[in-house]
Amino acid sequence: MKEIAKLMNFRESVKVVDATLRDGGLVNDFYFSDEFSKALYETNVAAGVDYMEFGYKADKTMFDVNKFGKWKFCNDDDIRAIVGDNNTNLKLAVMTDVGRCNYKEDVQDRANSPVDLIRVATYLHQIPSAIAMIEDAKKKGYEVSCNIMAISNTQETELKIALEELGKSPVDCIYIVDSYGSLYPESIQRLTAMYKEVADKYGKVLGIHAHNNQQVAFANTIEAVADGVDWLDATYGSMGRGAGNCAMELLIGFLKNPKYKLYPVLKFVENYINELKKQGVVWGFDMQYLITGILNQHPRTAIAFTKDQRTDYADFFNECQAQE
Amino acid sequence: MKEIAKLMNFRESVKVVDATLRDGGLVNDFYFSDEFSKALYETNVAAGVDYMEFGYKADKTMFDVNKFGKWKFCNDDDIRAIVGDNNTNLKLAVMTDVGRCNYKEDVQDRANSPVDLIRVATYLHQIPSAIAMIEDAKKKGYEVSCNIMAISNTQETELKIALEELGKSPVDCIYIVDSYGSLYPESIQRLTAMYKEVADKYGKVLGIHAHNNQQVAFANTIEAVADGVDWLDATYGSMGRGAGNCAMELLIGFLKNPKYKLYPVLKFVENYINELKKQGVVWGFDMQYLITGILNQHPRTAIAFTKDQRTDYADFFNECQAQE
Repeated sequence: MKEIAKLMNFRESVKVVDATLRDGGLVNDFYFSDEFSKALYETNVAAGVDYMEFGYKADKTMFDVNKFGKWKFCNDDDIRAIVGDNNTNLKLAVMTDVGRCNYKEDVQDRANSPVDLIRVATYLHQIPSAIAMIEDAKKKGYEVSCNIMAISNTQETELKIALEELGKSPVDCIYIVDSYGSLYPESIQRLTAMYKEVADKYGKVLGIHAHNNQQVAFANTIEAVADGVDWLDATYGSMGRGAGNCAMELLIGFLKNPKYKLYPVLKFVENYINELKKQGVVWGFDMQYLITGILNQHPRTAIAFTKDQRTDYADFFNECQAQE
Repeated sequence: MKEIAKLMNFRESVKVVDATLRDGGLVNDFYFSDEFSKALYETNVAAGVDYMEFGYKADKTMFDVNKFGKWKFCNDDDIRAIVGDNNTNLKLAVMTDVGRCNYKEDVQDRANSPVDLIRVATYLHQIPSAIAMIEDAKKKGYEVSCNIMAISNTQETELKIALEELGKSPVDCIYIVDSYGSLYPESIQRLTAMYKEVADKYGKVLGIHAHNNQQVAFANTIEAVADGVDWLDATYGSMGRGAGNCAMELLIGFLKNPKYKLYPVLKFVENYINELKKQGVVWGFDMQYLITGILNQHPRTAIAFTKDQRTDYADFFNECQAQE
């Protein structure tokens, strides 16, 4: 029987990670107003959220700072302008992408930074580079997590080797990531069992980052938490690339730890998320994402379909199948 | 391990039931055009859907025929105008509500009707009346299913008594119905185990009718099918009261029986469901339904909130809590 099966209980080790600015930034090129970012920060504090991810530490020699909002780069000073000294229980996170982050220079020692957690994102074939970044961040004093992306397209044997390597690294948390939104709760249950074997062996915690292509981001997240996964990513209004993520309002509504409060979450959706939608920022479940999810394909074609304001779903289904 | 856990298999006994006209009719007072109804019928045939529910057999002495579209009443002739002789594998269904259906007169013998399946909907306290309707429909030659509504607000002991009574009745299929959208996949797993004990004892099949208040209608449905539930309700574009139902496009995309085809489903959403939305028909997941779902309350206040075009979710949350 699952630990949270009784649905009345909670586990102290469960942490909620707000990824709105980071994953949401992928749909508006990180152009959030400071008012939005501050309100989000205050909401997270009030709602009892455990971590807030600001964005990426993108390499400025690779990405033009004039073409993106500030959370593509997450300068420490920009974060400080939002959080001040951050005398709260909310910890702050940034994401560093393997191959797209000049981490040696751009990630300062934790003692000099408002950031608490470095989230390393990697593809399977980049694991050695990811481990170098994990070691660097750990040496600088950070908590460190690692996302292995696109696992639904990998061989289990290779994934197991990667997990063993991560197990031996100083990483704190290993994330199960459903990049293509192709996984069902039953797949999550099996994957979690595989990840948990390594996590238990090496004393790591597990996290989950789900996508909503098949409207199961929340269902996959609560399946994972019942299977022993502790760090749960969510975004307000599901805001995120393509079909978006597990909705913060669903997750906070589900979790039974009394520190989590739904009222401020609803208030933020009401005042800020709906406003973004009115401004024409587009994300969320739709047929094109369902299609790439079912076919276990990268959502890039579905994102282009959305951008082109196409609605010929059935033809798009044929196009995607032709690419198989 | 669950039977469909491999996700590559399918079970012949699984049936898909399209409830678009019936549950969807609750958001547009059943004012569907004949073109819509015909296209839906043809889509169901092409997609391999097993049953199509047309609507209710509402008592014309209780409801004004001038205030609703025809599928509130489902005259046999109106159905025939859509399906002709229905020389297809698609079976046809109508719903009869306990206390709101003059079934003795309005339900003809099956031999004289295009309808194959009578779906009796009942609250727990009406079970004896439901059984009288089941017996009547069975005597007239129909397949018969029974929905016990609002079970999330009932005592398990009473529910078990009702299930035993239904078990002894001639009903063919007993439905697990999440009227308030308050159930999670784990709750479905436990409920299914309870229903299945009775179903196996009396040789009945089980069905599921889910609501999407917490974006788990599809997740609950695939949990149920993995636990042995055979009849699966879905609606195109999730169209249905409040937050709507399990989406047909998700369900057909998930099921592996080769008779199910996703292409016509997508085509119907593209051509007809999106058109309804453009016309201003409103349904689907939103904060107000999440709130009544979490609080295990009837969605009527959330439906009123939607109708009033309110967006003050946080205040609504307080109002609902005050009603506890």
